[in-house]
Amino acid sequence: MTSDTEIMLAARWHPPSYDIRIEKVPVPQIEHPDDAVLKVTLAGLCGSDLHIYRGQQPITKIHVTGHEFIGEVIKLGSNYGTDPVQSTIGRPNLYTSLNVGDKVVAPFTVNCGECHVCRVGYTGRCPSGALFGSPRLDGGQAQYVRVPKAGGTLYNLSSTASWSHTLTATSDVETLLKNISDSSLLLLSDILPTGVFAATQLLAHPKMQPMLTGRAWPSSLNPPGSALDSGTGLLTPEDRILTIAIIGLGPVGVCASVALLDALSQRSLPYRIVAIDLNESRREKLKRVYEAIGVDGKSLNGKFVVQGLEEAKETVANWTGGIGCTGVLEVVGNNSALTAAYELVRPFGVITSVGVHAPKNVPFTGEDLYNKNISFDFGRCPARAMFPMAFELLVKRQDVFGQVGTESGLIDRIVSIEQASEMYRAFDQGEVGKVLFDPWK
Amino acid sequence: MTSDTEIMLAARWHPPSYDIRIEKVPVPQIEHPDDAVLKVTLAGLCGSDLHIYRGQQPITKIHVTGHEFIGEVIKLGSNYGTDPVQSTIGRPNLYTSLNVGDKVVAPFTVNCGECHVCRVGYTGRCPSGALFGSPRLDGGQAQYVRVPKAGGTLYNLSSTASWSHTLTATSDVETLLKNISDSSLLLLSDILPTGVFAATQLLAHPKMQPMLTGRAWPSSLNPPGSALDSGTGLLTPEDRILTIAIIGLGPVGVCASVALLDALSQRSLPYRIVAIDLNESRREKLKRVYEAIGVDGKSLNGKFVVQGLEEAKETVANWTGGIGCTGVLEVVGNNSALTAAYELVRPFGVITSVGVHAPKNVPFTGEDLYNKNISFDFGRCPARAMFPMAFELLVKRQDVFGQVGTESGLIDRIVSIEQASEMYRAFDQGEVGKVLFDPWK
Repeated sequence: MTSDTEIMLAARWHPPSYDIRIEKVPVPQIEHPDDAVLKVTLAGLCGSDLHIYRGQQPITKIHVTGHEFIGEVIKLGSNYGTDPVQSTIGRPNLYTSLNVGDKVVAPFTVNCGECHVCRVGYTGRCPSGALFGSPRLDGGQAQYVRVPKAGGTLYNLSSTASWSHTLTATSDVETLLKNISDSSLLLLSDILPTGVFAATQLLAHPKMQPMLTGRAWPSSLNPPGSALDSGTGLLTPEDRILTIAIIGLGPVGVCASVALLDALSQRSLPYRIVAIDLNESRREKLKRVYEAIGVDGKSLNGKFVVQGLEEAKETVANWTGGIGCTGVLEVVGNNSALTAAYELVRPFGVITSVGVHAPKNVPFTGEDLYNKNISFDFGRCPARAMFPMAFELLVKRQDVFGQVGTESGLIDRIVSIEQASEMYRAFDQGEVGKVLFDPWK
Repeated sequence: MTSDTEIMLAARWHPPSYDIRIEKVPVPQIEHPDDAVLKVTLAGLCGSDLHIYRGQQPITKIHVTGHEFIGEVIKLGSNYGTDPVQSTIGRPNLYTSLNVGDKVVAPFTVNCGECHVCRVGYTGRCPSGALFGSPRLDGGQAQYVRVPKAGGTLYNLSSTASWSHTLTATSDVETLLKNISDSSLLLLSDILPTGVFAATQLLAHPKMQPMLTGRAWPSSLNPPGSALDSGTGLLTPEDRILTIAIIGLGPVGVCASVALLDALSQRSLPYRIVAIDLNESRREKLKRVYEAIGVDGKSLNGKFVVQGLEEAKETVANWTGGIGCTGVLEVVGNNSALTAAYELVRPFGVITSVGVHAPKNVPFTGEDLYNKNISFDFGRCPARAMFPMAFELLVKRQDVFGQVGTESGLIDRIVSIEQASEMYRAFDQGEVGKVLFDPWK
């Protein structure tokens, strides 16, 4: 427990750029009846932290960094449990069921859980949301963090009510959590749901359905046997092979790759995947991840290669007779990646972009987009809504997500928060992979 | 029947711009065993004809204009029926069933019907395709037209094999065609399937599914009752109302509006639609169309207003508490329309663009698209693949599509091809609506 006068260690960004300092600041307190305060167990360093770090945004306010963290609830505002009848009717169930001591993960943004946007599931764009680790809201690279709208925002790992039916049917809380490392749970805060979101969006797109259903467009959109269903039989088995490129093999790209392979395997869909990065060590990492997944007896029903961009273009041309990819996942967030995605995708193809993009015009004319019948899905993962799917994948793929510092593991190292400044520098320079901070080490 | 020495009347484009001449040219002949030659019954003047007319494309070749036409088969290449066993095995069924005398409609582009792209249903981007009325392929604003790959391209109105199951169950060829005007059949060549495509794409998009299914994202993508289905009950009836803007109320915009209303009515989906155009006469036309549809007892379950852009922005803000449209149909094809679509759509909204766009950069930064989680679907309708759906709507809505020169009818007038030059001018100036040419008048 903390008091108003207590202080904590926190990593804070200072203007104008490249200046992260470890400082002693007051422990955050409850400011609103919907708030929670967490003791942070682990906090992650994420590629998108670098946008602020590098001074690429018009920001001057000193603030605690970090939007990836897991922790334990140590304080709750007065709207939790004190007067359930008065305060929690019609509210998200965490308002009645969240308790001090619960193990929780926060998505990278606050979401109220109660508005139209949240009810629909687009929690990443809740109108009362805010990004952790931004001038508007202190982040989690610290010993403690305040979580606004905690009853809508947090995912309670201590309660099976948060889990998918598959997990609750096979596990109890204690058994399950005992076998899952905290470092892998940290991945739930951003990169794993973002990867699952990317793969899920791509496979759900209507332009992918002819390949998935074996029925030509637009029959593929109508129920089988309905008036406008032309039936199967028009497409050959070859026609149905999904040709997918993944551009950007940083941690989110690895998560997207694993999520995509898992979805393809669950649905027994044939595929040809080319995963692309300029950085050889990232390519090597993904090869090790694929080997780790491939040897466990799952039915992986296709080709998977990891290449540089120019080689990948040739590969796709050879695979498809010059037609191009059915879909492309863009996990980088710059115009070179968007251009590569455009060049790789076929007419009537789908580009799913989860990269964080800059205020710079996209490199396309209207004619480019018209002439290729391009479909684009841009933007941020609604992480809170994706947690059940992401958590299920996390449990299933502990062989990848549960490891630290191994060749096929996603997390490079866990270090003290005192090393934050040096780790930002090294991460920005590409010298280290995914780094987590243990604020109590 | 024609001979090699016969001549015909044709509208031809001359460089550099604004120069359409009615000329006597040789009747086209079979050039390839897959060709057909049609006697043109009616040809349409389309908004996208104006791109070439105005000299907006780098074209110098004199050519016959027009990509909208219906006609009767008068000649067939040697691959049709002469030796069915040798020549038509595994080929689209028109190669065995197309006959001289058949009444047919062509989509605005050639498609072979035999390649991977065609089998999947993306016929508008067949690699051996070509646009009628372009330098590559003479068009149909003439007395005769040659149709390459006719066995893949044409839709045979004289054969119920081409129809949807609903139509074949309720009608025979003669009865059905007797009640459908040729002028309405002409709409099948481009604008009606394009309108149906726009509405169909929008409603099929995964980001629309929470509203359509009543289940929050991403449960909305999973089968009800599956492990990752959070069930219904999270969304209120108000949450499920689709708020849709239609930008551009020219003939394609009217078709898109009718197709959208039909789909919403069939599925009993609640809606609020705002249809937008700068041009008052177009707005008035759509109001009359809506009245014609609304009074026939169909269950139209929502609000429908027709407004200018600024008024429409206020309307959407009022309807949605400032959140924005669930989806936007962009049926104009310029950057002002794309900007308006962006401003109107909500975060996680969908913009379906069927407008033909110019080689000009689109007016968005990557940050704009990321920050609103925008989904875009661009491009040309795969008209041949959309014919069954479009034909069904055409039959159902003869009250709109079957009329010529009425307040709620889509076709303004039918004139002699001799008037083509004047009609291009008047259409370009916005003085006339949808014009059809009768090359035999």
